[in-house]
Amino acid sequence: MMPLILQSDFGYSDGAVSAMHGVAYSVDPSLPIHDLTHNIPPYDVWEGSCRLVQTLGYWPEGSVFVSVVDPGVGSSRLSVVAKTKSGHYVVTPDNGTLTHIAIEYGLDGLREIDESVNRLPGSGESYTFHGRDIYSYTGARLASGLISFEEVGPALDPENAITLPVMEPYIEGDQAFGTIDTHDVRYGSLWTNIPREMFLQLGVEFGRYVQVHIRADHGDVYSSPLRYARSFADVSVGEALIYTNSLDNMAIAINRGSFAKAYSVGQGVHWKVDFTFPPSAAPVS
Amino acid sequence: MMPLILQSDFGYSDGAVSAMHGVAYSVDPSLPIHDLTHNIPPYDVWEGSCRLVQTLGYWPEGSVFVSVVDPGVGSSRLSVVAKTKSGHYVVTPDNGTLTHIAIEYGLDGLREIDESVNRLPGSGESYTFHGRDIYSYTGARLASGLISFEEVGPALDPENAITLPVMEPYIEGDQAFGTIDTHDVRYGSLWTNIPREMFLQLGVEFGRYVQVHIRADHGDVYSSPLRYARSFADVSVGEALIYTNSLDNMAIAINRGSFAKAYSVGQGVHWKVDFTFPPSAAPVS
Amino acid sequence: MMPLILQSDFGYSDGAVSAMHGVAYSVDPSLPIHDLTHNIPPYDVWEGSCRLVQTLGYWPEGSVFVSVVDPGVGSSRLSVVAKTKSGHYVVTPDNGTLTHIAIEYGLDGLREIDESVNRLPGSGESYTFHGRDIYSYTGARLASGLISFEEVGPALDPENAITLPVMEPYIEGDQAFGTIDTHDVRYGSLWTNIPREMFLQLGVEFGRYVQVHIRADHGDVYSSPLRYARSFADVSVGEALIYTNSLDNMAIAINRGSFAKAYSVGQGVHWKVDFTFPPSAAPVS
Repeated sequence: MMPLILQSDFGYSDGAVSAMHGVAYSVDPSLPIHDLTHNIPPYDVWEGSCRLVQTLGYWPEGSVFVSVVDPGVGSSRLSVVAKTKSGHYVVTPDNGTLTHIAIEYGLDGLREIDESVNRLPGSGESYTFHGRDIYSYTGARLASGLISFEEVGPALDPENAITLPVMEPYIEGDQAFGTIDTHDVRYGSLWTNIPREMFLQLGVEFGRYVQVHIRADHGDVYSSPLRYARSFADVSVGEALIYTNSLDNMAIAINRGSFAKAYSVGQGVHWKVDFTFPPSAAPVS
Repeated sequence: MMPLILQSDFGYSDGAVSAMHGVAYSVDPSLPIHDLTHNIPPYDVWEGSCRLVQTLGYWPEGSVFVSVVDPGVGSSRLSVVAKTKSGHYVVTPDNGTLTHIAIEYGLDGLREIDESVNRLPGSGESYTFHGRDIYSYTGARLASGLISFEEVGPALDPENAITLPVMEPYIEGDQAFGTIDTHDVRYGSLWTNIPREMFLQLGVEFGRYVQVHIRADHGDVYSSPLRYARSFADVSVGEALIYTNSLDNMAIAINRGSFAKAYSVGQGVHWKVDFTFPPSAAPVS
Repeated sequence: MMPLILQSDFGYSDGAVSAMHGVAYSVDPSLPIHDLTHNIPPYDVWEGSCRLVQTLGYWPEGSVFVSVVDPGVGSSRLSVVAKTKSGHYVVTPDNGTLTHIAIEYGLDGLREIDESVNRLPGSGESYTFHGRDIYSYTGARLASGLISFEEVGPALDPENAITLPVMEPYIEGDQAFGTIDTHDVRYGSLWTNIPREMFLQLGVEFGRYVQVHIRADHGDVYSSPLRYARSFADVSVGEALIYTNSLDNMAIAINRGSFAKAYSVGQGVHWKVDFTFPPSAAPVS
């Protein structure tokens, strides 16, 4: 018996999430059911991928995630279960939701859901709510041990899992380059895909200024030296900073303010960021 | 031991929901407690009724629902427990919340909650939070088996359960008539009360155009031929469509857009919809 | 085994709450995990304190609350576990979150979390997510019985717990004075810190008019006689009233409207309220 963790873009205002809970509960009343988030913006597969990688490692090996951000429901996109090299399972449409998990953990296996056996009995005429009829049902059966990973359906090559375009972070001279993958929504902080270890190769230490440069397709958005701080408490209220986020990647924020709102910063592969150290013309630190 | 599923208009921003959980947990720590939604718009009994019918059938027979949308708390409205013909229980103020459940499943029994025994001990001076003191408490006792349905209180005639006015869907010639009961909130889709089976009696098949006509008390809101599609993926992005929703009723949407916002469509018995097939002057399909 | 109840200002839109659940689940898969609310406004320690006192008493003795509203994460503020005189535990940064709990229940013990033993293994380089790495982890270990209260860390004097300024309610002649501690968010009702018993010492009975006076630092906000009603149903739709809230304190509302919005009323110690009975020039009741 492993826990089932549900994610979707269904929101919390109607009965869709509860129907998924009910299907999973009916499979096995002793199954632990938890919610990751159901506030993924509608159809935003990228965001779903980011939230999975933010969370998965804090659940035990064998945990089963169900992620339903499914703009292509009813199309020819496949329904799959991925097994990560860390031993976690993700039940999802094969539409890019596995992007960050595949990079961070690697995929050990991938299977197409065989709907002839892994579909809620009696739901055959419903073409629009696979989250309930296929994903929650299959995830619950897998988590409860009613079916094994092999019994999900035919094996696919994990290399062929659909992934969204990403830009891998890299270092060049005194600069580290990456993208703003997502935000810490409530606080408006920017989470880059540049790992702390890569950033530290620039020779930065706590308290030193680093040139931060953000640009989007439409041009430069921000360029200024900011301090690399251990945490928000090391800078003044209202001051911007560079810090290491809870995924051990570099992040940019305003203490008690919203960096994302202040400079209208978005997220995704088109939002580039680079750090330069030492900054060409930075204040003395 | 059966699961307890809670619904209310309390929102997720204060301690009201957690107080209900705590009362239920205190009745029996092994009770499975789930949330349907607590985002029912304040006082919107109709919406509460719609969300119950969307969800109830996906939970096992014997499950206990608590629904607290209670504009009349403290008035003479009764507190009741309904037993559906499907064997589910609903604990609720008798104010119309049972409307759709009664139509879809039928009521097998109705009992008034005897507050002299089914009230949280020590809560006698609170006249404003029956959700915590009476409904959650009674629902938890029923779900845990501490009381039977008979021990809820005196039997009432299920025929006398308060229901809100509805317009039953019907078919006439080449037209099917109904109402827009509710929306798929996150996607802005319109959920009508016209069953797929009734709609198909018009002779429609996938891919054919059907004339959609929506009107409210203030006049016509929309009139256009739309395609009947198996799912969103069968039409272009931005295209409107007719489809079968997850309750097996007919629905209207814009693929990746919000039909409700695009045409300012509301919900309830005053929002009429009809489908005509074949449409009088439709594009060739 | 006791339940773990989580509160934060993290919101429901990313993976932070699920990471906390995952850490707690990993400590002990049989642990009951519930959410109080994660919609505390960012950094609003006062609101976190109010929501705890609204809820705590409805959970059994021994329950463990984790509250993470932590503007000073990474500063020298302490991480503590408080034990209330009612036998509940609260795991929190020592920043004022215990204010209302300390007044309402009293603190029986206070211990600083010894991070050398009570920290998620491997999380030592993270300075920004103590909610996951320290608070959820320690709370789960305490709730599951893996550690005792004494094993949390060194004892502190409960008298030294940080508290925010409050104004204790008092009575003087024909007037009761207090503050508007918080709102019933969804309905826009004002919750004062004046207990029903103190209010009744004015000699008020149901149906009588009482002069309500609200003022903020910038001046008077509202002054009018209102009826003291048993519940909303005793007044007309749209009528304002005084009633006893679910904490047995006095509250002010508009039936089916929002008093807070109607008069732009805030919350906290700077929002003063007084009741005068009989009102100097009230309508005949």
